[in-house]
Amino acid sequence: MEDSVKKELPKVPPESPSGVRDYPPSEMIPRLAMIATVRDVFKRFGFDPLETPAIERLDSLTGRDPEFDMTLYSARLRGKKVVAESDTALRFDLTVPLARFIAANPETPKPFKRYQWGNVWRGEKVQKGRYREFMQFDADIVGARTVQADVEIIWIIAETLSALDVGSFTVRFNNRKVLNGLPDFVGFDSSLITRVLKSLDKFDKVGWKGVESELRWTTTDGRVLVEGEILLEGDVLAFNDEQIEKFKVFAYLVDDDPLALLAKAKVLLTSDIAQEGIAELQEMVEALKAIKLNKELWKLDFSVARGLGYYTGPVFEAILDDMPGIGSVFSGGRYDGLVSRFSDLEIPCTGASIGIDRLFAALKEMGKIELQQTETQALIMVLDKKFMSDYNAIARELRDAGVRTTIYFGEERSFKGQLAFGLKQGVPIIIIVGEKEIENGVVAVKFTRDRKQESLDRKNFVSVIYDYLSGN
Amino acid sequence: MEDSVKKELPKVPPESPSGVRDYPPSEMIPRLAMIATVRDVFKRFGFDPLETPAIERLDSLTGRDPEFDMTLYSARLRGKKVVAESDTALRFDLTVPLARFIAANPETPKPFKRYQWGNVWRGEKVQKGRYREFMQFDADIVGARTVQADVEIIWIIAETLSALDVGSFTVRFNNRKVLNGLPDFVGFDSSLITRVLKSLDKFDKVGWKGVESELRWTTTDGRVLVEGEILLEGDVLAFNDEQIEKFKVFAYLVDDDPLALLAKAKVLLTSDIAQEGIAELQEMVEALKAIKLNKELWKLDFSVARGLGYYTGPVFEAILDDMPGIGSVFSGGRYDGLVSRFSDLEIPCTGASIGIDRLFAALKEMGKIELQQTETQALIMVLDKKFMSDYNAIARELRDAGVRTTIYFGEERSFKGQLAFGLKQGVPIIIIVGEKEIENGVVAVKFTRDRKQESLDRKNFVSVIYDYLSGN
Repeated sequence: MEDSVKKELPKVPPESPSGVRDYPPSEMIPRLAMIATVRDVFKRFGFDPLETPAIERLDSLTGRDPEFDMTLYSARLRGKKVVAESDTALRFDLTVPLARFIAANPETPKPFKRYQWGNVWRGEKVQKGRYREFMQFDADIVGARTVQADVEIIWIIAETLSALDVGSFTVRFNNRKVLNGLPDFVGFDSSLITRVLKSLDKFDKVGWKGVESELRWTTTDGRVLVEGEILLEGDVLAFNDEQIEKFKVFAYLVDDDPLALLAKAKVLLTSDIAQEGIAELQEMVEALKAIKLNKELWKLDFSVARGLGYYTGPVFEAILDDMPGIGSVFSGGRYDGLVSRFSDLEIPCTGASIGIDRLFAALKEMGKIELQQTETQALIMVLDKKFMSDYNAIARELRDAGVRTTIYFGEERSFKGQLAFGLKQGVPIIIIVGEKEIENGVVAVKFTRDRKQESLDRKNFVSVIYDYLSGN
Repeated sequence: MEDSVKKELPKVPPESPSGVRDYPPSEMIPRLAMIATVRDVFKRFGFDPLETPAIERLDSLTGRDPEFDMTLYSARLRGKKVVAESDTALRFDLTVPLARFIAANPETPKPFKRYQWGNVWRGEKVQKGRYREFMQFDADIVGARTVQADVEIIWIIAETLSALDVGSFTVRFNNRKVLNGLPDFVGFDSSLITRVLKSLDKFDKVGWKGVESELRWTTTDGRVLVEGEILLEGDVLAFNDEQIEKFKVFAYLVDDDPLALLAKAKVLLTSDIAQEGIAELQEMVEALKAIKLNKELWKLDFSVARGLGYYTGPVFEAILDDMPGIGSVFSGGRYDGLVSRFSDLEIPCTGASIGIDRLFAALKEMGKIELQQTETQALIMVLDKKFMSDYNAIARELRDAGVRTTIYFGEERSFKGQLAFGLKQGVPIIIIVGEKEIENGVVAVKFTRDRKQESLDRKNFVSVIYDYLSGN
């Protein structure tokens, strides 16, 4: 309203909170195309869409786990009226909400293959390419105990990244059960496993020396010991020479032939849990060979751990070979215990999540994203307001034919100004109708990419434009 | 991880916070189709996609207006590490973030026509069909001062609702400037206008008696006076007989012919602002006639006010004629002052927002939504694990041909059990391959909708299925 009081309100700076961002059309057009490509692959694999809310109960997200240490966004009602409500927060992934949905809807026919894309929120340190609000696109199979389902997840990762034309990539995979055999193999308490995996995970980055140093001198809560600092036994990893040697043997357990690698591991890691993991990996490797998935695309790798605590079996992650530094772009694993956080049901689940924003940023950096200002195909100039109904009629005809059309409603009155707008936007067709064209029953059409202009009959200009845009 | 500590965590009930909901596939499939239809119309009208974050600074949303009284969701980081941050909240619409974006990116070529869909959050009272997290899909034109742009918004509303096949509907419109002429016409202080419009807006629901009673006996903060209660002058609307008579004249200002209606208003509402509004409406009515928009679809109606405070000119709302009770499903207006909340720029804007969830609920109630469990077209039975590589090969061939295909990975081992799953899901094609089919180089295919089964050659079964699904 024209309210004099409101006009005097102080200006608000047009800023966004830290860690979030806008996507202008030039980025949204290719980003939506990317999302459509992913969705198309997921649909072909028989996945169906689910949507869960952005806001979940805090307990659902943390599992009431006192060790849960992710920084989340709380989402609480605030206003003049105070409303009683449970403690709520924004989801940090799409997996926990899926488990909650499955527990709440036990009648859902299984296997249930669902895809879902949407934003998730994490209070991470803001840095280049890392945001606090970012989009994930997940595919999960609920109610499938067989590792054939895990193989399908690897397959879908490979198929999706190929469809997105990301260049060379590798899907690395492992099994948490093999890693859970480490306490038995090395000889340490299983409560330290998360901390140990964090150190082993750095092998690629810091080499064996770095990992060894951490395993000897890091406190169990992740702090590196200061020289001379003395800690009580149990507060420091402080593995001895014999243990370090065994970690080293494990870290150097590699082989280009996955079956040979599994044979080596089978001899070393003799605990029941590790043997189970090795047997599952063997079935997966055989299945990957059977489906003839190009073997350049996948790699069994015992160093793959994946950070999230809910994984129980196979884990996977895809790395862009040309940009390994950005980390995995499509990752996941099996989480057979997550539904039972919410109910007495034990429902096996496996799946993976593509980081849309991270992958988009990577593809942009690799020059694989074509930025375009607009998807509009035809701009109708407004040269004389008295012909407005003609402009509208022309727009209607073009739109009815499926041509994405706009009428110039801006402040530029001159031919030159409106033309400059159309050229800057990169619109392929500019339609010019003034006194002369109306008199002669024609439409002047500028084909901007070919730098030519034609006078077309008012009766068939739509089909000429349609054919031109269709490449006929 | 197989972590004994985590297993003992207390169960979390699989509940969602109040006011939010899940959309299972049966609803997401038609809902995504609906979103695609809307997007297709918006694109044909030359709109381009923008995405802004869910989280905005609180000041951006409230405009630092002390009268802002909507209940929002604050979104604050919470975790073991405390992070300094500005006061942030979840957006309550997609319009304010657009204005913020425009102010932050003044170089954006104009007119800028953008579409955006996404969730918005409001702390409204939870009731049937009303949620606190709901999806809006907006189309806005930035940088167009001409009411031809407002006409295009009405046009796009009509085109979208027709494309969505919602049945009979009416786009009602008005101009805030006409309403802003009321203080002058009736004789009251313009600071009361919001309160007055709230009462006039109830005319349809409570009739003139109800409106009159409110205008006589309601406090300026919206409370109805208790009998005998005495308030200081200025705290109560307490309009006198002469004023009430004028309100009544305005409320009964109706005419089926919009130009005749405007002629009547022109005589009564003589203030500059009202005359400006009437002239704009006249241009709009003439344009609507010129574009030949079916006149059953639109109606000039002085009772349309729209609640949001930022509208400055034409306002519009679409009502489903068969379900007027759910309120407007697609509404908006001109907000020429909103960008200047964030900068010294004065940029005219107009647009409208479709309430995807409200409209979806209405269409469901009207029986216009076809619920389907899955989009999967072919289910491959797993009758013998030793043929797994055949099942995978069949899946690959079908998927490569674009057939949405799944392999049965569930717990049912029997033919009967797997068949029942396929039939329950409503999958049109079930593929049966056992010992016999492998031996004979065939694939048994059950066409569930026709209740027939055929044995197809392993070499051309894909094209038979493809043709069947394409309706050939």
